[in-house]
Amino acid sequence: MVTITLLGTASLLPLPDRAETAAFLSCNGRGILLDCGEGTQTAARKADVNLMRTDLIALTHYHGDHVFGLPGLLQSMSVLGRTEPITITGPAGLNQELQPLLRLTGKTTYEIRVMRMPEGGLPLKQLHSNWPDGATLAAFGTNHRVSSQGYCFTLDRAGKFQPDKAKALGIPVQLWSRLQRGETVAVDGKTYRPEEVLGPARKGIRFVFSGDTSPCSSLIQASMGADLLICEGTYGDPEQTETALERGHMTFSQAAEIAAAAGVKELWLAHYSQMMQDPVAYLPYAASIFPGAVCGVDGMSKTLTFPD
Amino acid sequence: MVTITLLGTASLLPLPDRAETAAFLSCNGRGILLDCGEGTQTAARKADVNLMRTDLIALTHYHGDHVFGLPGLLQSMSVLGRTEPITITGPAGLNQELQPLLRLTGKTTYEIRVMRMPEGGLPLKQLHSNWPDGATLAAFGTNHRVSSQGYCFTLDRAGKFQPDKAKALGIPVQLWSRLQRGETVAVDGKTYRPEEVLGPARKGIRFVFSGDTSPCSSLIQASMGADLLICEGTYGDPEQTETALERGHMTFSQAAEIAAAAGVKELWLAHYSQMMQDPVAYLPYAASIFPGAVCGVDGMSKTLTFPD
Repeated sequence: MVTITLLGTASLLPLPDRAETAAFLSCNGRGILLDCGEGTQTAARKADVNLMRTDLIALTHYHGDHVFGLPGLLQSMSVLGRTEPITITGPAGLNQELQPLLRLTGKTTYEIRVMRMPEGGLPLKQLHSNWPDGATLAAFGTNHRVSSQGYCFTLDRAGKFQPDKAKALGIPVQLWSRLQRGETVAVDGKTYRPEEVLGPARKGIRFVFSGDTSPCSSLIQASMGADLLICEGTYGDPEQTETALERGHMTFSQAAEIAAAAGVKELWLAHYSQMMQDPVAYLPYAASIFPGAVCGVDGMSKTLTFPD
Repeated sequence: MVTITLLGTASLLPLPDRAETAAFLSCNGRGILLDCGEGTQTAARKADVNLMRTDLIALTHYHGDHVFGLPGLLQSMSVLGRTEPITITGPAGLNQELQPLLRLTGKTTYEIRVMRMPEGGLPLKQLHSNWPDGATLAAFGTNHRVSSQGYCFTLDRAGKFQPDKAKALGIPVQLWSRLQRGETVAVDGKTYRPEEVLGPARKGIRFVFSGDTSPCSSLIQASMGADLLICEGTYGDPEQTETALERGHMTFSQAAEIAAAAGVKELWLAHYSQMMQDPVAYLPYAASIFPGAVCGVDGMSKTLTFPD
């Protein structure tokens, strides 16, 4: 079970009902914070999200509306007595861009690890043992005015356990659950691998967070078959397409085209221009292209589960 | 007329109904922002305070809960097309402490001037012509764990205009209002000074903002006869007096003692520890010492006027 909470939907200017960009992914009591704009701490408290469980802060780029909440959050974690290390990742320029943010943060009661995402994604179990096997966060390049990347979270699901095969192989029943969880087990000098007793891999969970970007094929590619895509929709009106492109953003219609092309289940629009007072007024531009489009609001949450 | 709006009453941890420390003083359409914790922009919007009118940002010290809203605010002013210069002041270490904050801010559409407060205070008319004559902001040293200062705003009030004297001196009636406003005027080769036609100076307006501090005589001195004192009261319970002292803070009772000693009209407590869920529960500790004590809340506002 993976729960996604959208914490902030503002772009440049924070508003009383729109904090700067942030979203939280939680799974097995641990979490990933995606971006950390000003006001993220307060938005998390309002949404009943405990940021102390964060193992990884994944930044999409280094514009202020995506990172200015970082020094305050990192200091608060010290105030609250955190001892677990935290990892911060982001696109090219990471060390340099973090330098003034971490200088403001000062000393912390816990270790801050800074790392670029590995090719092929990061198995989250490397960060904390609570993360399930097969939970991975991967970054993909996006198309903003500066170095930027989006994130794709996947939780693989193993094939169905096949008792007949296990019986035929003579595997004791008490080892079945470990094989089912994906572990290789050894008994009486023999070794059994999960693939010997499991059916073909089943559809898992996929969640994608675009960050700021103009439409790009990497975002479509990452979103293929996703359960949920949180995609920026800085501009509502299709007449602003040119402005959006110039500024490395997109319109509601363009976000919907990406969701449709990728065959996602649900699209949450976010990162609204401060000029857009009522995003819902522009939703038809997206819904006419992709009916599963929704205007994200601060605090909106959804739990993604394996299909039956 | 001077309006004071308390924007944030949190200390270390921002809460949904408590932004980090900030207050705004407005007068004649211009303003001073006192501290700028995370969330100040949103708090100002909620309180209907237009921060674009700010001529001066006066920092009490450089702890995160008092300055982390600065990069976002300064960037937003650029987004909103500000061209007027803004001045930032603060205690010793100003240039060094601002460096990472201004590095995060990046380029602005307006000039940022950094200056220490002059001895005897800064006549605010030097920042913008809309400030009335006799409006001054002065800093005074306080007693926190780091370099810190509080601020005292004063608006002088000239003596009453005395038409008899003006007539006796033969000053043309059309010049009276200029003399009344404090200007020296020349006519027919003669020069007239305001003090020739005005009675003794009358009581003006005085407002004091403590910043973070343990009780100290400079705060009492600055607050003598103030119309309003916003004073930190990090701890409600008198049993926390020792903790407060160790951390460079004070209790509600101590703040009330300062207000009583200085003979202020009204005391607003602020900067509450996150452990204090309901500050009003501790108000009797202050009110028993100083009946004009009030628990400050985010967005609270008061207009100070000259007494009749």
